[in-house]
Amino acid sequence: MTHPGDVGPQTGRNLDPWYTSYADRTAGLAASEVRALFAVASRPEVVSLAGGMPFVKALPEELIHSAFTTMMREHGSEALQYGGGQGIPEVREQILQVMSLEGINDASADDVVTTTGSQHALDLVSKLFLNPGDVVLAEAPSYVGALGTFKSYQADVAHVAIDDDGLIPEALEETIAHLRVEGRTIKFLYTVANYNNPAGVTMSLERRIRVLEICRREHILILEDNPYGLLYFDKPGLPALRSMDAENVIYLGSFSKILSPGLRVGWALAPHAIREKLILAVEASILSPSTFNQWVVTEYLRQSDWQQQIEGYRAVYRERRDAMDQALNEHLPQLSWTKPDGGFFVWVRLTEQLDSKQMLPRAVKELVAYTPGTAFFADGRGRHEMRLSFCYPTPERIKLGVRRLANVINGELDLVETFGTSTRRGPDEDRVNMPPPNIS
Amino acid sequence: MTHPGDVGPQTGRNLDPWYTSYADRTAGLAASEVRALFAVASRPEVVSLAGGMPFVKALPEELIHSAFTTMMREHGSEALQYGGGQGIPEVREQILQVMSLEGINDASADDVVTTTGSQHALDLVSKLFLNPGDVVLAEAPSYVGALGTFKSYQADVAHVAIDDDGLIPEALEETIAHLRVEGRTIKFLYTVANYNNPAGVTMSLERRIRVLEICRREHILILEDNPYGLLYFDKPGLPALRSMDAENVIYLGSFSKILSPGLRVGWALAPHAIREKLILAVEASILSPSTFNQWVVTEYLRQSDWQQQIEGYRAVYRERRDAMDQALNEHLPQLSWTKPDGGFFVWVRLTEQLDSKQMLPRAVKELVAYTPGTAFFADGRGRHEMRLSFCYPTPERIKLGVRRLANVINGELDLVETFGTSTRRGPDEDRVNMPPPNIS
Repeated sequence: MTHPGDVGPQTGRNLDPWYTSYADRTAGLAASEVRALFAVASRPEVVSLAGGMPFVKALPEELIHSAFTTMMREHGSEALQYGGGQGIPEVREQILQVMSLEGINDASADDVVTTTGSQHALDLVSKLFLNPGDVVLAEAPSYVGALGTFKSYQADVAHVAIDDDGLIPEALEETIAHLRVEGRTIKFLYTVANYNNPAGVTMSLERRIRVLEICRREHILILEDNPYGLLYFDKPGLPALRSMDAENVIYLGSFSKILSPGLRVGWALAPHAIREKLILAVEASILSPSTFNQWVVTEYLRQSDWQQQIEGYRAVYRERRDAMDQALNEHLPQLSWTKPDGGFFVWVRLTEQLDSKQMLPRAVKELVAYTPGTAFFADGRGRHEMRLSFCYPTPERIKLGVRRLANVINGELDLVETFGTSTRRGPDEDRVNMPPPNIS
Repeated sequence: MTHPGDVGPQTGRNLDPWYTSYADRTAGLAASEVRALFAVASRPEVVSLAGGMPFVKALPEELIHSAFTTMMREHGSEALQYGGGQGIPEVREQILQVMSLEGINDASADDVVTTTGSQHALDLVSKLFLNPGDVVLAEAPSYVGALGTFKSYQADVAHVAIDDDGLIPEALEETIAHLRVEGRTIKFLYTVANYNNPAGVTMSLERRIRVLEICRREHILILEDNPYGLLYFDKPGLPALRSMDAENVIYLGSFSKILSPGLRVGWALAPHAIREKLILAVEASILSPSTFNQWVVTEYLRQSDWQQQIEGYRAVYRERRDAMDQALNEHLPQLSWTKPDGGFFVWVRLTEQLDSKQMLPRAVKELVAYTPGTAFFADGRGRHEMRLSFCYPTPERIKLGVRRLANVINGELDLVETFGTSTRRGPDEDRVNMPPPNIS
């Protein structure tokens, strides 16, 4: 695919004098789609339905001011100093309160490790467990940032089918059996059981129990990533997998969606022996997470009615979810999509003639961005699907974005009807940044 | 060494149901000495000469207040949001100013990547380059946190001899030649050329030029870790290695020692192709560094006379270095030690009869802590050396600490003289946490 004149990877290699020095794992490091997002989404004329940025303007800034002021007055020199690798005890105690809202009531602050956002915990758990060639089980589709991290440790992802009730237990059993026959080593099941990113679906209670049973029986650890659990819309969320099994689940939580991602405070709750190793991994990675930010979070939780604040977020995102659902009904009734009970994302199934990756440059030209489904599969699937996020734009912008998207899609479908193909390539396409994006 | 009744690693393994699931690299993960430090040093009655914590009380808190207030007023919703994986452009521009004080004048903000402290950059560079069995060259002794990170990627460290002028070029050449004969793959030279942690020595200008020549000739990348460069006491520091070679040096810098470690803002300046990969590695690790903290740093640098503030730190640490040097002269004239021109640490050479690791529990009992030399070698050396840090305790506490240390050392030497051995083991020793520690 590379032509002599291209300024592509091949040329880049030749220009990099250290090309032969990199570790084997670095060969798999592909240009991230996260950066492209920021480039696209930051242009104000584009309606971005691509990112996963929370609407932080819904957070009254005086709450942060107040938390900061108290922190500096009462813990200033501690907040400016190094801390322990596990995180400060005060925030770990409060994290127990947050997790109790997800049904986790048997945890100890000793088993919580705070990290630089929950992505960091995801990375360190991967570092602790994954040898090259190991297999991680994950929903089909699954969070793009997790797929990238697993790849960075040279692990393979085996996707497990989902439906509107989340991961399908029978598919999980079949996938495990198949991999075992092949002699593969399965290290853990990675799941976003609540308001899945990108699919928007939630694993039912019955299935949670089944999935836990299967993994216990097969001695497969579960890595439960739950950034959206408290952002439910229609009814309170289901109990976390971790609430039903303390021994076989590593639980990841985050303040990014219920407070602020700019603070980068997340956490892992892990069985004792794993937690010990996780602390060592944090120390090797960053010495200690930011005490400054942990204290801001601590004082915020102490001073504000944070549960009421989360209720406010729910109202904001519920309205946006509804705006997106209505706009899709109005402008793209011929397609199907999920209607999530919480979280940030709607998963849209296109018709077989449409290719979300190929269509993206045209969409950006029409001033709307989305994330092609291919970003959420490790195996090239997802061309006929896309993720739309409703978290950041206002309801009006969401409607505008969906209207623009409908123009693009309907234009494509007209072409298919007329010429039997949607492969309309223009010189512009090569100049538009390919596929955006997602951030968390 | 493990007895049946021990509550040791062997028992721990049996209790951990996931013991067989860990990655190969996790086997080398040893209980970190950093945590033990915090346990020891936090007891107020102990004079800790063990840690590497900067004296953050020397930073006027109103400067942080002012930076925070402006940040929230002018960039609030940006500071609370996700950022790009490379870090915000504003802080990267200012980092150029900081680096220009180290002689680096040809850098571009495009080639700077901000990280969660420079330890994070160290970790990610290691992840990019190190395969299991690769070799990293490092000073003998070398920063304990770097040794831990290299080990976490299953690399081996080959120590290169130093003297009062830092790394010895001839020793570097010999080590390289020896390793090449053995067929080993050398990935980079890790060096703390300014006010070495732990040795306190500085690589001379002549040697910097020689080391750069040797590494260029041998096609060995240099990883220059420079957290202390601006904290000089007697005369301005020497130009960074990076200032003389933009192609073969990755430079690591940090705000931990010139502002606050609690913010966890560090950076890497890397050749173009490496920088591109480093950004991808940041994204896989944490999505993006904290925008909140980057903005605090940005506004601090914009608003305050930060160079004058650094001059203030120099005065604080110079006084403490002098206090330690004088106390050693007074109480332990029979030993030899380095007198650093900057930084945080003095390296003490004990007599052959003394074992710093074995002596530590007795020192802690006498209410003084230090870091045994063994922490700074990957090969078990350092038993007859110790690191004393003068950064955190006041001059009075430093004098008290050295006096206590002299009591312990002289007590040991008396024993040696009387009985011909210092191996005085009591039941207490097993109960005292073994060897502390260092943080950065």
